[in-house]
Amino acid sequence: MGSDDAYLLTATQALARIRAGELTIEGYARSLLRRIDVRDADVGAWAHLDRDYVLQQARALDKVPMQDRGPLHGMPVAVKDVIYTKDMPTAHNSPIYKGDFPKLDAASIILLRHAGVLFLGKTTTAEFAASYTGPASTRNPHNPSRTPGGSSSGSGAAVGDLQAPVALGTQTGGSTIRPGSFNGVYSIKPTWNAVSREGLKISSLMLDTIGIFARGVDDLDLVADAFALRDDEPSDFDGIKGARFALCKTVVWPIAGEGTRNAIARAVEILRAHGAEVEEVDLPTEFDNLPRWHNVVLQTEGETFFLPEHRTAKDQLSPQLAGYVERKAGYDRREQLKAFDGIAALRPKIDEIAGKYTAILTPSVVDEAPVGLEFTGDSAFCVGWSALHTPVINIPGFQGHSGMPIGVSLVAPRYRDRHLLKVAKEVGKLFEAEGGWKRNLY
Amino acid sequence: MGSDDAYLLTATQALARIRAGELTIEGYARSLLRRIDVRDADVGAWAHLDRDYVLQQARALDKVPMQDRGPLHGMPVAVKDVIYTKDMPTAHNSPIYKGDFPKLDAASIILLRHAGVLFLGKTTTAEFAASYTGPASTRNPHNPSRTPGGSSSGSGAAVGDLQAPVALGTQTGGSTIRPGSFNGVYSIKPTWNAVSREGLKISSLMLDTIGIFARGVDDLDLVADAFALRDDEPSDFDGIKGARFALCKTVVWPIAGEGTRNAIARAVEILRAHGAEVEEVDLPTEFDNLPRWHNVVLQTEGETFFLPEHRTAKDQLSPQLAGYVERKAGYDRREQLKAFDGIAALRPKIDEIAGKYTAILTPSVVDEAPVGLEFTGDSAFCVGWSALHTPVINIPGFQGHSGMPIGVSLVAPRYRDRHLLKVAKEVGKLFEAEGGWKRNLY
Repeated sequence: MGSDDAYLLTATQALARIRAGELTIEGYARSLLRRIDVRDADVGAWAHLDRDYVLQQARALDKVPMQDRGPLHGMPVAVKDVIYTKDMPTAHNSPIYKGDFPKLDAASIILLRHAGVLFLGKTTTAEFAASYTGPASTRNPHNPSRTPGGSSSGSGAAVGDLQAPVALGTQTGGSTIRPGSFNGVYSIKPTWNAVSREGLKISSLMLDTIGIFARGVDDLDLVADAFALRDDEPSDFDGIKGARFALCKTVVWPIAGEGTRNAIARAVEILRAHGAEVEEVDLPTEFDNLPRWHNVVLQTEGETFFLPEHRTAKDQLSPQLAGYVERKAGYDRREQLKAFDGIAALRPKIDEIAGKYTAILTPSVVDEAPVGLEFTGDSAFCVGWSALHTPVINIPGFQGHSGMPIGVSLVAPRYRDRHLLKVAKEVGKLFEAEGGWKRNLY
Repeated sequence: MGSDDAYLLTATQALARIRAGELTIEGYARSLLRRIDVRDADVGAWAHLDRDYVLQQARALDKVPMQDRGPLHGMPVAVKDVIYTKDMPTAHNSPIYKGDFPKLDAASIILLRHAGVLFLGKTTTAEFAASYTGPASTRNPHNPSRTPGGSSSGSGAAVGDLQAPVALGTQTGGSTIRPGSFNGVYSIKPTWNAVSREGLKISSLMLDTIGIFARGVDDLDLVADAFALRDDEPSDFDGIKGARFALCKTVVWPIAGEGTRNAIARAVEILRAHGAEVEEVDLPTEFDNLPRWHNVVLQTEGETFFLPEHRTAKDQLSPQLAGYVERKAGYDRREQLKAFDGIAALRPKIDEIAGKYTAILTPSVVDEAPVGLEFTGDSAFCVGWSALHTPVINIPGFQGHSGMPIGVSLVAPRYRDRHLLKVAKEVGKLFEAEGGWKRNLY
């Protein structure tokens, strides 16, 4: 493979070639830019992309002596356009912030930049990573009539389409796991607050989390290192054989479509065929409150966090977000606190339940990516885990009725992110090999 | 009073004169700048102050027709230098960010700017609003050999010294209540998350809160309106007579000094003399964990939030904050989650206890401001309320052994901020009249 095809590499593979002197960072960047040139009109994953600036960065990185390079030197990363970058504008897919250019790097950006990352550009997002309607300009790379999911639409699509090996997104409801599933890639929502959210515009303080997209767990591990994700103890996981998984269908299982029902059934079969136990676990009934409580927290925090935009430019705010500030749902403080405290009380309980298993297996999505670009899909299977602050990873490998990718999620207790990644790596190998979905891009 | 003495006015008084055409905003600004000129060498409250820019803003505000003015048109506000302002640099009292100038307004700044506020400048802060040592350049206006408190040192000192009628600060431990007490002013830490923290650099996500300083409750109310602080129901408080206060000395009462012991005793006497009941309430023993749990949350969140600075400029980070990242205290994830969840479980309990009373009366500080400028004083009486997310207000009116101001705190359940302000207004009148402290500035 020459550098022309370098866009096909995972970040881990590319960094090895860069270190070996077999690939220049400029050559790698040019390969990705060519892929973007070929595909951008169909996919539309980018909110901001300055080709000259990418090449300028790449050449500067190529000039750094090997011994002075950080661990991610030359790794290209796409950044969701709700995360501040001092060298690129940040517009939140809101007309209020069109062209806005705060000279500020988010904490996640500082850490990656320090490690040597090459930032490719900013990816499309639903308005403020909060609106249910997507950036209609972004299409699913596996079928342009379908949504790539949201709100991290461009990050999911860019990684799924081989335009970037790694991307940052965010999750408040299902904004990292859902586009991971719809675009056929790995995506992790780490434990809440394990990665600094400094410089990520707030939608909900109790829910927003930085997310990571990649085409392999090794690449997620690279970013997890840069973010210093850390468990108390090393994982004792030593392979699928003898591992114990809890299948947790959750209270919203009745809305699961055929694609997800088949994916979960196949996932269970594969795990069992390789010697794992899979036990179906019903969460205690108090967990049934999670979908409603998540929505209460989302809307009541939205009242606080979208107030500035509502005061200064209400007519440029979508009715959904304006409705949070105007309290259209009618939630009062009592209900807000009941949800806030109710969720808090469930967190140690889910840790205890999840801690009894290697991981929880649970759906990522209702079904494959729906047709249409406005509605980014239902986050019903994700919101509970977002509220519970547990790490969640989407693992691709299955497919729906129309041949679109479907992933399933693994969940671990809070601050067991590294354990979860270790498990996901082995589980992912099996699901990718035996789940039945093959990446088939244009 | 001519505009020469306008610096003596509260914001409420000044805005009334501006509205009546008796005071120009430029005249008001000039009066404050003269006060600053006279006092700045002794007090040192400002991290950034551009006199020409202040006057330029003032003249622009004067030109706005009366009918186009916002509710706070012409109100001067000082801003703690950890809150981003698009027209002034933000340096966090850290050499790492010296001269840094992100072109970004924090949510609190957007709301105040939209209401017509005149931003005077940025006030001094402890490093990242997180270090226990203060900006040694800032002195207590009531005695320059003593600390103004921290971490909102400049905001407390500026308002206490009549250099600004209103200031924004923050509180993570006791950084708003303590300088309020030490400088003889009112200061409120609203319910956590009731005011958007967007654009306030994170020290601890679960603890940081925007705070407000002023010399009267009417002025705090003006800012509370701009921030849309909102209770479910209007307060039913209708005067001190017949009101019921819980005296809550807390688990750290044994370290209270003579000044605070006398202030609390006198506060109880005054309230009772005016017909209120005051009942001493011991919180359940599980609340005794709060000081330790607060510290665990502070340090473990600090690991996440100071990681970028530690990675990029460790030698420019104070040993205290570097120690959070290096986990010098040895707290593991298990302990972190125990503290996080333990505090969460206490929040509905304190709401229930506090909800039985008009307000909780509790110390603000250990004693009057200590001598010296390095150590900003003990936050032991504040950290529990910060962790519990309740609104707290410091009410001045008492004095210590050396004649320095001492305040006491009132506390209400979460999202009873407007009720608390209403109660504080009446209580403050009594404490200021009968508490024994008189403002006596140089």
